[in-house]
Amino acid sequence: MPFSNHLFAAFCYVLGAYALFPDCTNGPLKNETICNKSASPLARAKSLVALYSLEEKINATSSGSPGVRRLGIPPYQWWNEGLHGIAGPYTNFSKQGDYSYSTSFPQPILMGAAFDDALITEVAIVISTEARAFNNANRTGLDFWTPNINPFRDPRWGRGQETPGEDPYHLSSYVQALIKGLQGESSDPYKRVVATCKHFAGYDIEDWNGNLRYQFDAQISQQDLVEYYLPSFESCVRSNVGAFMCSYNAVNGVPTCADPYLLQTVLREHWGWNDTEQWVTSDCDAIQNVFLPHEWSDTREQAVADSLIAGTDLDCGTYMQSHLPDAFAQGLVNETVLDQALVRQYSSLVRVGWFDSPDDQPYRQLGWDAVATNASQQLARKVATEGIVLLKNDGVLPLVIDSSMSVGLFGDWANATTQLLGNYAGVSTYLHSPLWALQQLNATVNYAGGKPGGQGDPTTNSWLALQPAIDTSDVLIYVGGIDNSVEEEGHDRGSLQWTGAQLDVIGQLAETGKPTIVVTMGGGQIDSSPIANNPNVSALLWAGYPGQDGGPAILDILTGKAAPAGRLPQTQYPSSYISEVSMTNMALRPGKNNPGRTYKWFNGTAIYEFGYGLHYTNFSANITSGLEQSYAVESLASNCNATYPDQCAFASVEVTVLNDGNMPSDYVALGYIGGTHGPVPQPKKTLIAYQRLFSVAGGSSGTATLNLTLASLARVDEMGNKVLYPGDYSLLIDNQPLASFKFTLTGNEAGAVLDKWPQPPANRAKTTTGYYVAGYGGEQDTVER
Amino acid sequence: MPFSNHLFAAFCYVLGAYALFPDCTNGPLKNETICNKSASPLARAKSLVALYSLEEKINATSSGSPGVRRLGIPPYQWWNEGLHGIAGPYTNFSKQGDYSYSTSFPQPILMGAAFDDALITEVAIVISTEARAFNNANRTGLDFWTPNINPFRDPRWGRGQETPGEDPYHLSSYVQALIKGLQGESSDPYKRVVATCKHFAGYDIEDWNGNLRYQFDAQISQQDLVEYYLPSFESCVRSNVGAFMCSYNAVNGVPTCADPYLLQTVLREHWGWNDTEQWVTSDCDAIQNVFLPHEWSDTREQAVADSLIAGTDLDCGTYMQSHLPDAFAQGLVNETVLDQALVRQYSSLVRVGWFDSPDDQPYRQLGWDAVATNASQQLARKVATEGIVLLKNDGVLPLVIDSSMSVGLFGDWANATTQLLGNYAGVSTYLHSPLWALQQLNATVNYAGGKPGGQGDPTTNSWLALQPAIDTSDVLIYVGGIDNSVEEEGHDRGSLQWTGAQLDVIGQLAETGKPTIVVTMGGGQIDSSPIANNPNVSALLWAGYPGQDGGPAILDILTGKAAPAGRLPQTQYPSSYISEVSMTNMALRPGKNNPGRTYKWFNGTAIYEFGYGLHYTNFSANITSGLEQSYAVESLASNCNATYPDQCAFASVEVTVLNDGNMPSDYVALGYIGGTHGPVPQPKKTLIAYQRLFSVAGGSSGTATLNLTLASLARVDEMGNKVLYPGDYSLLIDNQPLASFKFTLTGNEAGAVLDKWPQPPANRAKTTTGYYVAGYGGEQDTVER
Repeated sequence: MPFSNHLFAAFCYVLGAYALFPDCTNGPLKNETICNKSASPLARAKSLVALYSLEEKINATSSGSPGVRRLGIPPYQWWNEGLHGIAGPYTNFSKQGDYSYSTSFPQPILMGAAFDDALITEVAIVISTEARAFNNANRTGLDFWTPNINPFRDPRWGRGQETPGEDPYHLSSYVQALIKGLQGESSDPYKRVVATCKHFAGYDIEDWNGNLRYQFDAQISQQDLVEYYLPSFESCVRSNVGAFMCSYNAVNGVPTCADPYLLQTVLREHWGWNDTEQWVTSDCDAIQNVFLPHEWSDTREQAVADSLIAGTDLDCGTYMQSHLPDAFAQGLVNETVLDQALVRQYSSLVRVGWFDSPDDQPYRQLGWDAVATNASQQLARKVATEGIVLLKNDGVLPLVIDSSMSVGLFGDWANATTQLLGNYAGVSTYLHSPLWALQQLNATVNYAGGKPGGQGDPTTNSWLALQPAIDTSDVLIYVGGIDNSVEEEGHDRGSLQWTGAQLDVIGQLAETGKPTIVVTMGGGQIDSSPIANNPNVSALLWAGYPGQDGGPAILDILTGKAAPAGRLPQTQYPSSYISEVSMTNMALRPGKNNPGRTYKWFNGTAIYEFGYGLHYTNFSANITSGLEQSYAVESLASNCNATYPDQCAFASVEVTVLNDGNMPSDYVALGYIGGTHGPVPQPKKTLIAYQRLFSVAGGSSGTATLNLTLASLARVDEMGNKVLYPGDYSLLIDNQPLASFKFTLTGNEAGAVLDKWPQPPANRAKTTTGYYVAGYGGEQDTVER
Repeated sequence: MPFSNHLFAAFCYVLGAYALFPDCTNGPLKNETICNKSASPLARAKSLVALYSLEEKINATSSGSPGVRRLGIPPYQWWNEGLHGIAGPYTNFSKQGDYSYSTSFPQPILMGAAFDDALITEVAIVISTEARAFNNANRTGLDFWTPNINPFRDPRWGRGQETPGEDPYHLSSYVQALIKGLQGESSDPYKRVVATCKHFAGYDIEDWNGNLRYQFDAQISQQDLVEYYLPSFESCVRSNVGAFMCSYNAVNGVPTCADPYLLQTVLREHWGWNDTEQWVTSDCDAIQNVFLPHEWSDTREQAVADSLIAGTDLDCGTYMQSHLPDAFAQGLVNETVLDQALVRQYSSLVRVGWFDSPDDQPYRQLGWDAVATNASQQLARKVATEGIVLLKNDGVLPLVIDSSMSVGLFGDWANATTQLLGNYAGVSTYLHSPLWALQQLNATVNYAGGKPGGQGDPTTNSWLALQPAIDTSDVLIYVGGIDNSVEEEGHDRGSLQWTGAQLDVIGQLAETGKPTIVVTMGGGQIDSSPIANNPNVSALLWAGYPGQDGGPAILDILTGKAAPAGRLPQTQYPSSYISEVSMTNMALRPGKNNPGRTYKWFNGTAIYEFGYGLHYTNFSANITSGLEQSYAVESLASNCNATYPDQCAFASVEVTVLNDGNMPSDYVALGYIGGTHGPVPQPKKTLIAYQRLFSVAGGSSGTATLNLTLASLARVDEMGNKVLYPGDYSLLIDNQPLASFKFTLTGNEAGAVLDKWPQPPANRAKTTTGYYVAGYGGEQDTVER
């Protein structure tokens, strides 16, 4: 009866009979090593686990861990969310007063568009601070299942909004900054909170065309895996992240939560993610999915054994709790493996100070006054402003909006409330819509928006108000696009087009000849060519899910209170793209039924490309120092002795950026590597560095320093090895580009291997009726339908 | 300013300043022909429209018709819904007390499964009676946009639940019974309410793979159109239905609301639907869609003109209201066409007594005591019971459930509330779940269901309660499947599989060896082969969306209080079906990338076929009289002088049905025609008649009379003509079949044409850049993805 204890514990929890934290001062464990602050987290955790019975151990595999009452171990809920502010099913906001709200930042897709890593660290510090305050009030936990760091591979993905975008370098850089803010420095005595990199790996389909995330088998070549799907996770390892989450899908035949190749060989052995305090949780019920619908393990008992043995230490759900007893009875798993999982969990809790007295833990002192501070609120607005991307401007922007003006405001997002937040949102401090923000500006506002959230639907009966609002306005602003009624967890998009209803309204606005500005919202890009190509539409912006202060952030940009400098973190494909490639085709390179994915490989013409973004001024750039004409591969490689050889420094490149116009503006210096080197096909270019410069005044210049490593030059071969190849290279600054520098690497054609990739074992995938050799490295053809 | 009057009217409406009905006794119109009860509806409507200004006429094109204050014409809201009880956005239920609820019947897909037309008429009488009571209290209108009579062509369709099933004969028969109950007899002095057959035509895709309903162009051959997509609509015409609704999609290039071929040539001319009181409404905002996204008309003004001229008399929305003024100014349309639309509308209102004194109108006397009567409640339960289909039974059913028993109840539907109703539901009298019903039976109930509506999701944290409930129960009942979180308006299904989570629970129940019963819910069929093939699952039922008394209806069947006799109104395809055919492939016959559709043409093996359904007893059947061995086509045709030649009687066949077992049971006698005749390919068989026999006692027999017409024998040729061909025929009773009779038709190979189909004009479809000749009659290949 593995659940009896759990039920009792849950009962006590409800009654508040348990303490929030174990009591190492007076509790039953006070004399055990677990309570000895001077012992190592490993020794402390081991001493605790040694006291557990098998039943107690099994119960502790559940995300709703019941604790062990006789030892004074309280229940602990591992499932906490913090994507863009604390959130999730188990974060308990009070109905009013203290702890009834927190700071709600924009969705990562817009935060990614800021290309400002320091800003991301600031955001993450706010989130972890507010998390601690809520935890001290027994309202959330100490580990958070964020970030979602799967690259936004296909524009249809319903959860792409949760990610910083499509580029693996960008994601890797972003996530490093984020984890620093969430967890603190590795040298800190206590972690702020534990971050969890998810979903490891290859997860980016919800329900496309009958391919459900719970059973989808992503066929990914080793080359694509290393080059595209894994860098952000490797960056998590290098950032010392405390937790990973394995995903619903299978990769090359094996459900990831039951895959020792991914969880042990790659993650723990090759990448060296082997601190004792680091654990892997399953996505919710993903252990069940190993049995059904994956049918990877033949029985439920085998599924929990396979998952635990593969390296999944925690089960979001209760499947291990329910079926490990029989798995033990059947001899499918031994207690050593279970102990290891629990030691990882508890040493992680040691590192957040769960067992230690609050007196000497600053994070334990945080209270309500640390939540939703003025600085946090300003930061939320700033992040949104930094992320917004200007896509088109005939000069109408920036716009002076004063009391002499009459502004028409239209669209289903104009009066947005929770739409502003996107998914995985908590209770925000407030929800400031574009309408609200406009009303603060003292102009006459003629609002004729549709029903929020209705943009996929007919606009019946909302048309009559349009014409009067149009007639009486000097300038017309449309705020629309898509939202979570179209793209959401569990549901991928079926179309990249604007709805006819929205284009009709925009068309009516534009036909008036009055200045017409369109702000497109949502995470995935919509093909905005009808707007881009309409000469009567004066300006177009993309503002993602801008968070609690999204309206003011949009108005800040429109009025020039802030200058736009965000860049698109994803390719805006033509709407026909989705009929050219199956969502299940995981290949990045162009091939049969695949025009290629991301700015690196897409062989068509993007409507707006990755990295695109206009300013209210013009910039020019010069590469002033740092690069030579030629380098020898061998000496670059032999001079490199870093733990991660690809991270050896290559060059520190100074780029002088001049604001050629009048208006001060931020500028994101994007550094790409192009040229001809390494295995064919070769990408158009590859982002390898970026830096945001702030408030460069008109006529002035700023300097960006792009630190290139050997990874900036390396390519991945078909076996997944990272290799430094001889050949022609060019460093390109910005998309156009504004400056470039060509150089050469000389040496043996085979190049120098920076990282030798461990190959997956042969016979490991199986069908429902038996085993077969999986097609590793194979490129999957599009499913013909 | 076409809206000023509307706004004013709406204002007055809110204040109650207008009467509900025009006042023909004391109002401004009292001396006009419109108020003359002895004049014809046509003359009366004409006299009213003649008094309208152009602006007033234009305003009256909107579903939210503002009326004309100076004439005492109150606003009228045309948009009312009544799919399975009064419902919809404009039916106003009070918060409590009188008019706070009504009777909510099962979804049509389950009502269709009863194969009991008289029952459908009874249901429709309740709906129209309750509608009248609500209308008298100013809570709903007098016309209802029901039924949805597009055949359920593809199992993915999100709105298939709203239809009676996949078979055109079944739909035609069902809808005739329904309209009779909604409208009353044609000879009645007043219509009960006006029914609206929708969506005309070819509408059965919501958002499949980027094909949105607002812009999808259904390519349908004339043969498929006449044979499959139109019969239910032709039946509406023959039932004298008061209204049609044109659909969002285009058919063969032309948006249906702007298609004179469909709305004029086919509907009004060929079928003869030309009473003055009959009108066509657009689906909501479908007129806008003619402009965008269809891009059929080049301007908004052209779109409203095209639609009005094509024969759309009413606009759900305000697009005509907004853009007809300019369309008139540009000379795109003349007032005669507008007058005709309004005359149709107002003569329809004459026929429901809108202008006449309530004193001599019995329907105007109906009040709250006519709503949700005991009889109506019993009927709602009876309909659900009649519709439930028994798919598998190893003898465990019927089940005695008494106080000695301990029953385990599981699944996300077990404690269903609004799930029971499906979409387009009003406020039901109550919501009786399976759990509620079971609790009435005095047994011990061990309930461990999931969260209602969560069946597509992980079942995290709902597992722990399973085992105790399993352990302590004698019999295990699982109620699950799909619901409107998976299939809904605007969203087609992406999978025909049971979720892994549900199969896992069912598997755990079955493994106990205890009697395990699965009840599958939802409108579209799920591939239940894992359940059918599991020898430990004792019984399987399908119960659709069973309405307000769905739980008791299910228990009535399980306990044998009622004997199951429903039949599947749709094919249960294997889950692989959806990867074999694109949803956009409208062809019925097998072809490239199409295994064929419906029981007539599917060339694979169904999991459960259309018409399948077990009983608690066994039946045998004999065809006792009515058929001869041979008939001459020519004499059959020449003896036929009916308005609709295909409806000429052919034979009245008596079928004696014997209950070979002990338990009394209903039995649905299904009559199919098989054999070799007419154009190849030939269907496996075709349903041509059915009759439900009631309570046939064990050892007794009943007699079904199947009235065959020439339509029962006719085939449709490639031009869409209905033809009586010589050849071999067999009448088959039931699916197995239980009895059959072979006969021959002799005559000229070309056969006798019963209906010559009007061909569509040539040059009429266009692209965005010009016109091209549409591929009429062509079969569309599957889109390759």
